[in-house]
Amino acid sequence: MKKGIYIENTPLEKALELWEAKTMSSMRAPLEGEAVPVFESLDRVTADAVFALISSPFYHSSAMDGYAVRFADTFGASELTPKKLALGEQAAYVDTGDPLPEGFNAVIMIEEVNRTNGHGPGEGAADREYIEITRPATPWQHVRVIGEDIVSTELVLPENHRLRPVDIGAVISGGHTTLSVRRRPLIALIPTGSEIVEPGAELKKGDIIEYNSRVLSSLVTQWGGVALRTAPVPDDIEKIKAAILDASERADMVIVNAGSSAGSEDYTARAIAGTGEVLLHGINIKPGKPVILGWVRGKPVIGIPGYPVSAYITFNLFAKPVIYRLQGLPVPRPPVINARLSRQVASSPGQEEFLRVKVGRVGKDLIATPVSRGAGVLMSLVRADGIVRVPAMSEGFGAGTEVGVEMLRPEEEIENTIVCIGSHDNALDLLANVLRKKYPRYSLSSAHVGSMGGLVALKKGEAHLAGTHMLDEKTGEYNVAYIKRLLPDRKIVLINLVYRQQGLVVPKGNPRNIRGFEDLKRQDIVFINRQGGSGTRLLTDKSLMELGIDPGEIRGYQHEEYTHMGVASAVLTGIADTGLAILASARALDLDFIPVANERYDLAIAAEYLQDEKISALLEIIREDRDFRGAVMSLGGYDISDIGKVMYEQ
Amino acid sequence: MKKGIYIENTPLEKALELWEAKTMSSMRAPLEGEAVPVFESLDRVTADAVFALISSPFYHSSAMDGYAVRFADTFGASELTPKKLALGEQAAYVDTGDPLPEGFNAVIMIEEVNRTNGHGPGEGAADREYIEITRPATPWQHVRVIGEDIVSTELVLPENHRLRPVDIGAVISGGHTTLSVRRRPLIALIPTGSEIVEPGAELKKGDIIEYNSRVLSSLVTQWGGVALRTAPVPDDIEKIKAAILDASERADMVIVNAGSSAGSEDYTARAIAGTGEVLLHGINIKPGKPVILGWVRGKPVIGIPGYPVSAYITFNLFAKPVIYRLQGLPVPRPPVINARLSRQVASSPGQEEFLRVKVGRVGKDLIATPVSRGAGVLMSLVRADGIVRVPAMSEGFGAGTEVGVEMLRPEEEIENTIVCIGSHDNALDLLANVLRKKYPRYSLSSAHVGSMGGLVALKKGEAHLAGTHMLDEKTGEYNVAYIKRLLPDRKIVLINLVYRQQGLVVPKGNPRNIRGFEDLKRQDIVFINRQGGSGTRLLTDKSLMELGIDPGEIRGYQHEEYTHMGVASAVLTGIADTGLAILASARALDLDFIPVANERYDLAIAAEYLQDEKISALLEIIREDRDFRGAVMSLGGYDISDIGKVMYEQ
Repeated sequence: MKKGIYIENTPLEKALELWEAKTMSSMRAPLEGEAVPVFESLDRVTADAVFALISSPFYHSSAMDGYAVRFADTFGASELTPKKLALGEQAAYVDTGDPLPEGFNAVIMIEEVNRTNGHGPGEGAADREYIEITRPATPWQHVRVIGEDIVSTELVLPENHRLRPVDIGAVISGGHTTLSVRRRPLIALIPTGSEIVEPGAELKKGDIIEYNSRVLSSLVTQWGGVALRTAPVPDDIEKIKAAILDASERADMVIVNAGSSAGSEDYTARAIAGTGEVLLHGINIKPGKPVILGWVRGKPVIGIPGYPVSAYITFNLFAKPVIYRLQGLPVPRPPVINARLSRQVASSPGQEEFLRVKVGRVGKDLIATPVSRGAGVLMSLVRADGIVRVPAMSEGFGAGTEVGVEMLRPEEEIENTIVCIGSHDNALDLLANVLRKKYPRYSLSSAHVGSMGGLVALKKGEAHLAGTHMLDEKTGEYNVAYIKRLLPDRKIVLINLVYRQQGLVVPKGNPRNIRGFEDLKRQDIVFINRQGGSGTRLLTDKSLMELGIDPGEIRGYQHEEYTHMGVASAVLTGIADTGLAILASARALDLDFIPVANERYDLAIAAEYLQDEKISALLEIIREDRDFRGAVMSLGGYDISDIGKVMYEQ
Repeated sequence: MKKGIYIENTPLEKALELWEAKTMSSMRAPLEGEAVPVFESLDRVTADAVFALISSPFYHSSAMDGYAVRFADTFGASELTPKKLALGEQAAYVDTGDPLPEGFNAVIMIEEVNRTNGHGPGEGAADREYIEITRPATPWQHVRVIGEDIVSTELVLPENHRLRPVDIGAVISGGHTTLSVRRRPLIALIPTGSEIVEPGAELKKGDIIEYNSRVLSSLVTQWGGVALRTAPVPDDIEKIKAAILDASERADMVIVNAGSSAGSEDYTARAIAGTGEVLLHGINIKPGKPVILGWVRGKPVIGIPGYPVSAYITFNLFAKPVIYRLQGLPVPRPPVINARLSRQVASSPGQEEFLRVKVGRVGKDLIATPVSRGAGVLMSLVRADGIVRVPAMSEGFGAGTEVGVEMLRPEEEIENTIVCIGSHDNALDLLANVLRKKYPRYSLSSAHVGSMGGLVALKKGEAHLAGTHMLDEKTGEYNVAYIKRLLPDRKIVLINLVYRQQGLVVPKGNPRNIRGFEDLKRQDIVFINRQGGSGTRLLTDKSLMELGIDPGEIRGYQHEEYTHMGVASAVLTGIADTGLAILASARALDLDFIPVANERYDLAIAAEYLQDEKISALLEIIREDRDFRGAVMSLGGYDISDIGKVMYEQ
């Protein structure tokens, strides 16, 4: 085991400056042009200014259906003294777009003309056809003159311009059939690691399915480059060096994924140093610290960390600007909106944190809610609407702080998102899916903070609705007492979603023979708990109290999960022997289940949003959609006899 | 010549409602799914919800480089009472990502551990290796537990979701190698017209280069569909009918381009009626009135007008929603910003006009300036930043009215655009191109309204700078007197760009033997004038006055063009025999030139923007860039001895 590489903590800003200076001074950018057919140039970038070779139109043509005339022949025509123009000599029928016959210089619209022969008032011979006009034409009226659209030699597109559909029309119209566009930047992606396997391989413990290179390849494509992914390279410094050297011949930039840290099998920094130069190793960001910036045989080489969120963030920070610069394009900056944080965020000073957040519009306010912060949680990026940067010098933000959010989704989608904060139920995921299917414009975003957290979010105006299942012991009724107590001055409508079974989830076959809460006292049993404020935690604590069990006696009581699936997953994977969750979660993971209670799960909706179109759409699905009901029933353990029914209103 | 088709004037809103109702009720949408490799699914749309097949990670793994331990073995360790754990039995080295050995349930970071043998304090045998720890581990610390990222059976992506790079990672991580995505909508595009020719063909008068189908194809691609372009079909109703029938077999929607009006060769409406049903023909929009909505053998068929702007606008209005609906996606709406109109816009009531505008940020204000309104001017779309809709009931807007602009370019680009309003010079186009090349982030947008119009725009805060060449007869100096008079209370810096030659542009060889302004009196000479307020018009009027010529005597004096190139083009194409313009414009079109005056062309810059980065970049190019100077000199007729010099400051 070789150690001895210590990674730095260079401030992000300094690292970006260094990288920009190096790439600006040492790369030939932008790339040279290549000729492509204009038809195939969509989204490519002009390598030269495009000037028109011909005018458009390139002949005078009629802008109307009508008659081409010489305007001088029309002088004196009026309602009282109509004038006849001989067809063929003085007037010629033209359709829109037809060239004007030589010598003609105006068009009279067909609607303003009578076809006639020489009979009747005005001059003209009886054997010929005429048009009769009642007012003079002005020079060049209704004529598309040469160059009306584009004048030959005119600048059609500047250099460094990304071609849009209309640009393609203009370039063709200007007489071009091919176009010089920048060669696409070639970006080599080298996945490394002896443990990585390709998707679809037979999996064994210790294998890691390689997908980072697929995410990074897709980003390269989106940014206008071409990704050259190599076969995975095992943790062998000579093989990694060879791969870097080979890639540096073929590509404009080389990306080595993983092995960028300082572990015993992290060879990337040494491989870059051994083939070229390491400019920097380690920056003060989180996630993404162990990034490596290097230079090998005239090409930029980046060592990208292995955790998927770290990989995504560092690739955006360091690879994206290079790919744009190679194309002669400005680096697009993400749109930033201001939002209010729904919860406090503590952050360790000394590192700039890239916090993933969900963003929702509730009334006038944009609310940002942090999602998982783990560098290994790719789903935090999938679920996120944006990123909040917590500065290196900061210890975090208090709840309610206004923060800038770099958006990952268009603001329009945010406006069309229903914000549901509170207790989780698997039926909510189905509801989200049916909503999206039936109303593609809308989506349901749910944050799982427990029933109490949901009602607090409603109170603070941070959610449209909250899922809740809190039993009031005095009345024996669910939710109503808590709404009265916590939200006395808000108009709330409480609508039932489901009744569901809660119970102790145990491994298949119940190997430890758990029969109920009383078994939690056993020292051979490890419990997994739910977080304080969740309805399920309330049910746990109430059950323990009734049995006179001191939570202090229970192993694992301190270990909290945030969702039913989290509890079931902990049981499945042996982290715990049992935990309280809904039947659907046990069914989903094929676990056994000891029923404890049948409980009511309602949605508390802020009444002011009932007329909102997206909330109406949601209620319509809850109340009427057969697919949704069928899907809920097939989860197991649900009773939907009151689905959509108003249980309480205030 | 058959006539007899009269097109309607259906209100746009009614037409959109009718079309939506028909497509919703008569199409099978969204389209069915097809399996594709996950790697190739970027930007495709999920046809089913995607659930995880496996958890990620699917085994407990170390989140750090360090030692896997059983947390129970670590109890009691402290700084004072360090504990030794035997390597192999009680502790095992793990790299980040390594699976935890069976039975181990915590990881201690390598930095917190001393490797040691049994010697020294603490228990342990001298012949074995140990790690020494100084505090206990908590259960599952530094462990990525199974399902930390994705729990098996969890919803990874909903149906109708367009795949982003991170989604591809999540789907692979969830155990998938293929994915069911919506089949891409197939859109048949049938270009029609006996006069159309393919790009690159030998051109003769009357030919129209076919490019609409290339613009529409590119839009189809951008919207996620596949364009099936057929060979052009001549104006023959039977051939058009056959093409529609064939396309309706192969595609999900059929687009017939042009022939949608009511002229003698407009067969599209009859061809649709003859193969299916015309739902509607003609809507109250401008441009784009003669659109046809039809239905043939279960497929939507749209007759799209031939003018390029009409084609673009109607395709966006009627084809785009169908293409998105077929994919199960919401129809994206363009972002709308509010801007102030820089000029009055008159519009004919009864038609909703789609006005193309340039948009610029000058100080705090966003300013929208209309560009050409012709349906045939594709460059109006190329140059436009957005579209302002003038409602059907409106007679237009006054200057200064705040209007909503549907944006065609990202707002970031608008913010980085220098707004130059005023007199035109060919050197400005070169400057725009060099700016874009050297600073891809910035662009220079120039509106050509003449010198006077430019100074007025500066006064009203609608431009950063203005090109101007106005000779004050009293002082004999250019521009200064006008700035003093028109902008007495603005801080202005006047910087020279070029000295240039103005003269009479005449056809090659000067066939009418024009020697100077005195020849304009001749009745065989047609003049082309510049608009009032332009410096060139001032020069014309001054020259005529000095010669004692009454403008009323000059044929064509009333006919105004807005640019030097417009004047030169009119001479080239025979619209006029001569006009006053700069030498560069005559050179560009290979025309002859009779010098009249050498004049100074300056840029008047509002001093408050001198520190602005984009203005600094522009001045740097003017003052220092050799490429720019070389390009200006090669245009001909320019003297750049004072380029970049401050001529006046107030």
